[in-house]
Parts: sequence; C-alpha cells; structure tokens
Amino acid sequence: MESPRILVQLDSDAQPSVFDGVVAADAGVDHLFRHGGIVPEAVRDLVYGAMFTRGGEQLRHTALFVGGSDVAAGEQLVEEVKKCFFGPVRVSVMLDSNGSNTTAAAAVLAAAEHLDLAATKALVLAATGPVGARVVRLLARAGAEVRVASRNAARAGAVCEAVAARVDAARLTPVQVATDTELNSALNGVELVFAAGAAGVELLSEQARRDCGTLRVAIDLNAVPPLGIGGIEVHDRAKDYDGVTCYGAVGVGGTKMKIHRAAVARLFEANDLVLDAEEIFEIGQAVVGG
Amino acid sequence: MESPRILVQLDSDAQPSVFDGVVAADAGVDHLFRHGGIVPEAVRDLVYGAMFTRGGEQLRHTALFVGGSDVAAGEQLVEEVKKCFFGPVRVSVMLDSNGSNTTAAAAVLAAAEHLDLAATKALVLAATGPVGARVVRLLARAGAEVRVASRNAARAGAVCEAVAARVDAARLTPVQVATDTELNSALNGVELVFAAGAAGVELLSEQARRDCGTLRVAIDLNAVPPLGIGGIEVHDRAKDYDGVTCYGAVGVGGTKMKIHRAAVARLFEANDLVLDAEEIFEIGQAVVGG
Amino acid sequence: MESPRILVQLDSDAQPSVFDGVVAADAGVDHLFRHGGIVPEAVRDLVYGAMFTRGGEQLRHTALFVGGSDVAAGEQLVEEVKKCFFGPVRVSVMLDSNGSNTTAAAAVLAAAEHLDLAATKALVLAATGPVGARVVRLLARAGAEVRVASRNAARAGAVCEAVAARVDAARLTPVQVATDTELNSALNGVELVFAAGAAGVELLSEQARRDCGTLRVAIDLNAVPPLGIGGIEVHDRAKDYDGVTCYGAVGVGGTKMKIHRAAVARLFEANDLVLDAEEIFEIGQAVVGG
Repeated sequence: MESPRILVQLDSDAQPSVFDGVVAADAGVDHLFRHGGIVPEAVRDLVYGAMFTRGGEQLRHTALFVGGSDVAAGEQLVEEVKKCFFGPVRVSVMLDSNGSNTTAAAAVLAAAEHLDLAATKALVLAATGPVGARVVRLLARAGAEVRVASRNAARAGAVCEAVAARVDAARLTPVQVATDTELNSALNGVELVFAAGAAGVELLSEQARRDCGTLRVAIDLNAVPPLGIGGIEVHDRAKDYDGVTCYGAVGVGGTKMKIHRAAVARLFEANDLVLDAEEIFEIGQAVVGG
Repeated sequence: MESPRILVQLDSDAQPSVFDGVVAADAGVDHLFRHGGIVPEAVRDLVYGAMFTRGGEQLRHTALFVGGSDVAAGEQLVEEVKKCFFGPVRVSVMLDSNGSNTTAAAAVLAAAEHLDLAATKALVLAATGPVGARVVRLLARAGAEVRVASRNAARAGAVCEAVAARVDAARLTPVQVATDTELNSALNGVELVFAAGAAGVELLSEQARRDCGTLRVAIDLNAVPPLGIGGIEVHDRAKDYDGVTCYGAVGVGGTKMKIHRAAVARLFEANDLVLDAEEIFEIGQAVVGG
Repeated sequence: MESPRILVQLDSDAQPSVFDGVVAADAGVDHLFRHGGIVPEAVRDLVYGAMFTRGGEQLRHTALFVGGSDVAAGEQLVEEVKKCFFGPVRVSVMLDSNGSNTTAAAAVLAAAEHLDLAATKALVLAATGPVGARVVRLLARAGAEVRVASRNAARAGAVCEAVAARVDAARLTPVQVATDTELNSALNGVELVFAAGAAGVELLSEQARRDCGTLRVAIDLNAVPPLGIGGIEVHDRAKDYDGVTCYGAVGVGGTKMKIHRAAVARLFEANDLVLDAEEIFEIGQAVVGG
C-alpha cells in the first residue's frame, strides 16, 4: 500500500501561506504539515523528522516546500535543508517563496510561445529582484542575449556574475536604467522585455514601449496598479498592442498555477529532487507542451 | 473532478480551537488550514491566498471560518475579511467566535419549539454580551417583543440601538436589572427568559423564576455551575419545572452542534456566503425542521 | 458512518514534530491537528475541544498525542490532560516525548528476544534520563534484577524509589558509576546492559564490554557518534561481537517505528486509554509477537 503523501510547508512568514497550501491540496497532497515563522535554526529537526520516518519506496511520499514572502529567506532555508541530507537519505524539496520560481518560469514560457529565445535580445527591468534574477537565469539558459537592468549598475553587475557562475556561455550585459535616456538606450534593438519590479511602480511607459520599433513581446509581472508597463492590463494574455504581444501578471498567472501544481506533484515521484528555477522551468515546459 | 474542500480557520486565540476543528472535520472538510493568533493585519494575505488559487466552480470549495474565544475580535476579523473581496472574487465565510452564533441560534430555536415567537414577550438577561446580543437580534427578527436587560441601562440601550439598525420594526425595550426589584419588574408579563451571562453567575434565582406566573420557557446558556437560572440542570432539555419548560446549556448543545456542522457544510455550496447570526439561524431552522 | 480519525498533537516545542506527524499519518489518522509551543495553561481549552465535540461511539475517533523534545515537559502536559477528564467523558492520550516510550519499549523487547528477563541481571547506564528511567520501569515490571546507574548516587536512588512506587516487588539497586572501578563493579555478574545516555558520550568502552564475562546482550540507544557503547555500530541489530549480542540505536529503530505506529492506531480503539511506558510496551509485545 502507498503511504499518504505528506508535504511539509516551511514558510518564513509568521502565518504559513494559504495560497501555497491550496495549490498543494489541488496537487493531490494528502496531509499538509504547515509551519510558519521558520528560521534556519528550526530547519534541522523538522527535516530530520521527514527523512527518518519512512524507508525505501515510501520515502518519496514525504516532501518539503519552502515558501514565504521573502525570497532571500527562502533561499537560506533551502540551503539549511540541503545540509541535513546525507547520501541517499533525503527528501525532495521545492522552493517557491513569493511565487518567484513558478512566476519566472511561466513568464519565460509565455515569451517562448512567440519567440525563439536562443535568437532573442531581451531586456529584464528590475532584474535584481528575486523574480527578475530568475527570469535572467532562465533566459540565459535558453540561449538568449540578456540585458540585465537595474537603477544601480553595481547590482546589475552582481546579478550577471551570479548567473554567469551557474549558466555556461551566458550572454549577459549589465545596464543601468535610472533615466529615460538610459531606458531608451537599453531598449535599443530589443525584441523582448520583462518588467519584474515592485508593486505599483511603472518601469516602462506606454510611449517608450511604442517607440521601441524592434519590440515584439512585453511581459509585466506586477499585479497591482499602476502596472510595470504602461498601457498593458493585468489580465492581458498574448494581447496585441501596436504589433507587440503583451502579457499582464494575471495573464501569466494561469500558466503559473499549472506549473506550481505540477511541480508539487512532481516532488512525490522521487526522494532526491531539488526544484529551483531551472527544474521548475523544465516542469513548465512539459505542462505547456502537454 | 471536484477540488478538495478546504476550510481556513482564522482564530483570534494563540492556539486555534480544537472544538471548531473537530466540527469542521465532521462536516466533511478535506483539509483544515488552522491559523491561531490572527490579528486584523494578518487577514489580507491569508484571504487573498484563498481567493486567488481556484477559479470558477472550484472557488466555492475554499471557505473561511472565523473563531476564537473573543467575539469582538472575531467580528473585527470578519470585517477585515470582507474588505478583501471585490465583486464576484470572494469566498464564503462563517463567524462563530466562542460558539456565539450557533449557540444563539440553537437557543432561540429551542424557544420556538414551544412558543410562537411573534406573539411572545421575552426577557434576555445579560443581553449585552456577545451571545445575549445575538439572541436579541434573532428574537427581534422573529417578531418577538424583547426586553433587553443589563446591569447597566446605557449598555442595554446601545444593544437596542444596534439591533434596531439591523432589524426592521424591532420591538425592543432596554431595561436595567441590577436589583431584585428591577428583576421582578423586568419579568412582569414575560413568557420567555434567556440567561446569557458569564460562567458561574446566577442571574435568575429559583424563587424569582417561580414567582413569574406568566413564564412558560426558560433557557440558560451557562454551562459552568452555579448556572444562570436557579434550579435548572445543565443537561435539561425541555424539562418541566413547575409548569415552565426549561433548558440548560448542554440541553441546547445538541442542536447547537448540528447547526454548527450544517453551517460549515453550507459554506461549500456557494462562494459568496457570509454566515453570521441570522444566516446561521436560518440554517438551524432547516436542521430542526428536517 | 464512522467519524474521521483526528489526532491532536500537543507538542512542547515551538514547532510541532514532523516525525510524530508522519508516523501518525502512517497509522491511518485522517486529520492531524498539530499544535506547537504548548504550555500547561493551554491544555484545558484544547482538550475540552476534543472531549465535547463527539458523543458515544464516535468519541474514540478523537485522540491526543503529547510530544516534544523535553520529556519532563511532556509528562507535565499529560498530567494537565488527565485533569480535564471527568468520569467517562474523556479521550485517549499517548505520551511519547522525544520518542522516550517507544524507544524504551523497543529496547527492552530487543533484549527479551535473547534473554528471559525475569531471570536476568541487568545494568542500565544513564538510568536517570527519561529513556533510561523508562527502561528501568519496564525491566523491573518484567521481573529482572536491575542495577540503576548514574554518576550521581542520589539521583540513581531517586529513580529506584520512583519505580518501586509503581512496580510491585521491583528488584532495584542504585549504583554510582563515575569511575572505571565503579563501572567494573556495576558490570560484575550482569547479563544485559543498556546505555541510555546523552548523544556523543561513551558510557561503556569496548574493553570494559569485553572484560565482562557474564554479558550476553548490550543495547546502545545513542544514535550520534561517539556511541554509548564502544565497538557497536549504530545500525547493529542483534550483531554478535565476541559472543555478545549487540544493538545500536538505529538497529532498535525499526521496532520502535512499528510500536509507535501501532500505539497511535490503538488510541482510536477506545476513548479511555492513557498510553505511557507500560501500555506502549504491551502494544510492542503484540507487534513483535504478531
């Protein structure tokens, strides 16, 4: 008989995410162990409890999900989780703090429906945030030439270095975008733009979008008005504006949800998975293709 | 395929109520998301997580339950919950902090088995507490003439005003009951009396109950001795004492439990219900009648 | 129809144990109500919620599990739990803080596979810790002659008194073991030795073990190297070293897990069980024998 599927939700926020819980239930989890207020020191005992209770084939029916609104905190928790494993004694773990991995995967997959990423020049605005940096990673891995934009040139450079260390032959250029002139320069020759900034901050005006003659796809990941790209609506899904195919945050959200559910379900197929941006993107490719 | 039924328990106490959890499980909930220590600031993220994870027909399989020992805190949480909704994007929510709504509904339904409420003069003792005030609301709505009693006349008046604002043509009289003389005066001509006071406080002595010649039904909602009405036992259920039909708190409890379960089950039939005293009373009418 | 099986996990640690949760799920629990940070003052409301929500035959489908890393804290919580019960209105409860009861039961059952305990002289090292004291209780109850060892003679004496108060005709001798000479004296004529000390402390050297000519079975309950008995490996399960049958902590762990699962499942067979060391040992006898 199969053991029930248990997902241990390790959340860095005081109250564990209801959003992540509902998706897990819809992915077929039998028991959710929801833990809020998780700090690195609390990880070991909880992970040992997951590792040392089931053996053999049944071990893969226990898995971990790391979430919360703070992506850096989640990344730190995943590092703590990995330190607990030794050899084959381990359980699968997924990181999706603030929806960062599933959102980045859905956004890049949306672009890939319209463009050959390996032959695309892309610009990622607010690329130093957790979602933006993941979009850069996924684009670089798909072979795109990526301009990594931030108001601060040094931070853009740091993201480029971090991504280059992970992705072979990444083609990355840090660009400072603090003024309209710098933005226009960054947009020059670009076919694809992502806006991955904070809620309520417009990163690309409607005029600037129209003025970029090479632009073919624009994707905004901000769900709270004013949106990150002027003239786009939050529900837009491959909507044409002046010859540019546009997506709003909710327009990407349907695919994001499917990827999120599929990734949680995938956790229970083996006991040694670590699902971060790249792995979740691959799951997304199967979801979109299937 | 139907999504699993998820109830998000938002509890104002540090540890979420086991009582409410067991009833939810018995009402057929598949996954309980139990949150304790909920303050108004924590509501939005949790409710958004419930609202934005399922679409269409499946949205009604996620619902909220607000509980905890502090009814005023629960009422505040429900207000915060309602602020999160926009248009049809919402989930159903039930308030039953300290069992206030299900207890009040069960108590008034017990009375209605023996009396035509629309033609009844009722006295509610300790009517300014959360259960008492709900009993007043339900009686007024059923057309009864209600004396709203408190040791403090001003607080009794405030409850009358609050209920009158909700119930058309409510027939309410605030009465101060701080002395035996005031109590006897308040009892004059009354057929129905409720004691909704704090645990261990006798509000109506056995002698005063006997001296009220018009009294036909007496219902005590205090489960901890000494009870609120002298001579009644906590398990009494429609027991006759000197020609008065009497209920103790546990005697009302069986119906309360049925109403509580039915109300939780009802949450999953639509995504736009707000179950407070009146709605839960109507569910109770179907439970008792069916 | 049967009510779903609900286990209320009352854990003295800030985060409720994942280990205990997984075992409960594998024991067939339908809903786990997991509570961390439980102090004695929080017990009553939670236990009342378990006691007052179901009646008759269904009451046994709600049960309590007390756990956490601090065994003394768990024992205190169980005392609080028992104060809540009155007469037949109660639910079953199991104590297994830090795995103390299931580990002690598994260890003594391992010894019983090789020795007639009623005719055995046993030495328990670090007998004043929570697992050690439980091993003493179980051995005494099985009729063994037990030397109760501690670095501190007074503490060893206190454990003897506590066990003698519970077990009729217990044959117990407190022994101080602070030096090699004292250890050799304590080992004199002993057939069975348990090491129940803290992680990483060797209580019995390989040489001392070999020098004890009467020794037939040695059981170490420390899973973190250096182990409590020199020369034993943590996975040893009835492994022969120089004619002595040896067990390491993980070697005992398989039986411990089976006992733990069986004990949780047993909770739901009646509403009046209190499962502490002796009751869990009896469940273990059925598990090992069956």
